[in-house]
Amino acid sequence: MVYSPEVTRKQSMISSAAQALLSATSAPGVTLFPEAFERIVAKLRAAIEEIAAAEDFTALTAPPVLPREVVERSGYVREFPHLLGSVHNYGGDATDWLTRRTAAVPGGLWHETQTIADVVLTPAACYHVYPFLSAQPEALPARFAVESWCYRHEATSEPGRLRSFRMRELVYVGEPKACIEFRDRWRERASRWLTELGLDVTVEAATDPFFGTGAKLLSGSQRAQELKFELAAPVADGVRQAVVSANCHKSHFGETFGVRLPEGGPAHSACIGFGLERLAMAVLHAGCDEALAA
Amino acid sequence: MVYSPEVTRKQSMISSAAQALLSATSAPGVTLFPEAFERIVAKLRAAIEEIAAAEDFTALTAPPVLPREVVERSGYVREFPHLLGSVHNYGGDATDWLTRRTAAVPGGLWHETQTIADVVLTPAACYHVYPFLSAQPEALPARFAVESWCYRHEATSEPGRLRSFRMRELVYVGEPKACIEFRDRWRERASRWLTELGLDVTVEAATDPFFGTGAKLLSGSQRAQELKFELAAPVADGVRQAVVSANCHKSHFGETFGVRLPEGGPAHSACIGFGLERLAMAVLHAGCDEALAA
Repeated sequence: MVYSPEVTRKQSMISSAAQALLSATSAPGVTLFPEAFERIVAKLRAAIEEIAAAEDFTALTAPPVLPREVVERSGYVREFPHLLGSVHNYGGDATDWLTRRTAAVPGGLWHETQTIADVVLTPAACYHVYPFLSAQPEALPARFAVESWCYRHEATSEPGRLRSFRMRELVYVGEPKACIEFRDRWRERASRWLTELGLDVTVEAATDPFFGTGAKLLSGSQRAQELKFELAAPVADGVRQAVVSANCHKSHFGETFGVRLPEGGPAHSACIGFGLERLAMAVLHAGCDEALAA
Repeated sequence: MVYSPEVTRKQSMISSAAQALLSATSAPGVTLFPEAFERIVAKLRAAIEEIAAAEDFTALTAPPVLPREVVERSGYVREFPHLLGSVHNYGGDATDWLTRRTAAVPGGLWHETQTIADVVLTPAACYHVYPFLSAQPEALPARFAVESWCYRHEATSEPGRLRSFRMRELVYVGEPKACIEFRDRWRERASRWLTELGLDVTVEAATDPFFGTGAKLLSGSQRAQELKFELAAPVADGVRQAVVSANCHKSHFGETFGVRLPEGGPAHSACIGFGLERLAMAVLHAGCDEALAA
């Protein structure tokens, strides 16, 4: 990853209430979160849970790693290869290690002996839900509230663009029409909540950051079909980031993971994802953290 | 990673209250955590915080990824190469991807185009603290309560041996004598707390799982110096796992990361790590989850 001097300069020029709280590490976009920041994250999570109490969600906490087959089967590797964090492990043997580690920089030898592990870093919390559901078709229609740490290998690290962050998602899996209703109902609820909280929220039809020369075609199609909406808010002076994303996936995950409707045919799915760090940054930037219930 | 038929058979024979709650994924040792399990994790975290209130800890939430230079500088790569999860990212270009992704299995092409990222999966929560401290020498002596998801590329997955799990650590950085006192004081506090809770706790001098033919020498030296103690408890019928680990690192991290005592010389450090999932499993197995304060 190359960080241009422009990006670095821009970052250092932008100060924000949230950035003053976070502690950067030596890896761009990877930060530590002190207690004052975590209190806001906890309040945001509680507020989302309170709104979600209007419907009956099954809560799941998912780990930051996901079976590799899930991203390979779902097409994530094909469409977003540049964002995926892949996990590798040591593939050498002990004798080799002992003989060579003294003769070489350990880092260098380590790099030569990597093999591909059966997990990747979780790119989005909801990827954990579909394989889980495929084992229990009787559960449809299903609603999950799932949270996990996500990783995206972002090329820049302006305020709010973290590589390692937490996403809380509300997921619906069922009939096509119910999925669109779910997505639209939750987009409205989230927009109302954040506006009442005091954030300057905009709602826009959006697209995913597809990779390669087919990207324009894919994202154009996604926008034309109005599959993805983003709620954006300022997280620092002059920096607006998507804080919530509301999506319909049509039958994509249902087909991929064999989740079928009771009356036959692949299940459809929809989700609304809350970026907890970005929301906390937006709340701090707007100075409305006191408005969050304790 | 090879899972022997013996291990698989053993796993399927062992049932436990905790395992009935967890949802396995297709990757061994990687599970989803439902609400009933998370309630116990939250209560355990609150109990640790309450005990820790006896001393003044600075709380930090750390991400599941850590700058690669931290594990390389600290010697983790040299001593525990087999446990480290290394992050790689896509190293090809868009034209190459588009041309070849249609001709090859996407997974296969992805595997060929990996490059080494600047982060690894966090092997232990306290690794985030030492580089953080090296920037603020005025903070010594320092106490941190740091939590993060950790990853260890374990070769087996019997009950309690997860690859992705949460560790909450209390860390002390300061004078050599104060570090040993910290480690011993917290080992006693943790042992008393868990025994009163109703767990069958044993305390033993322990060693880290060093790799290679030098492992015996290193672990023997660690045991002889009584640097590491483990508190173990049953997590399933016939399966006892370490649930808490209390360690002195002597000047290792202070020297590595340039954390110096006010009067000169490298700072020493000590930590006590609580494995939150294993503790929750032990509590469920002992049936003493009701004894945890709400």
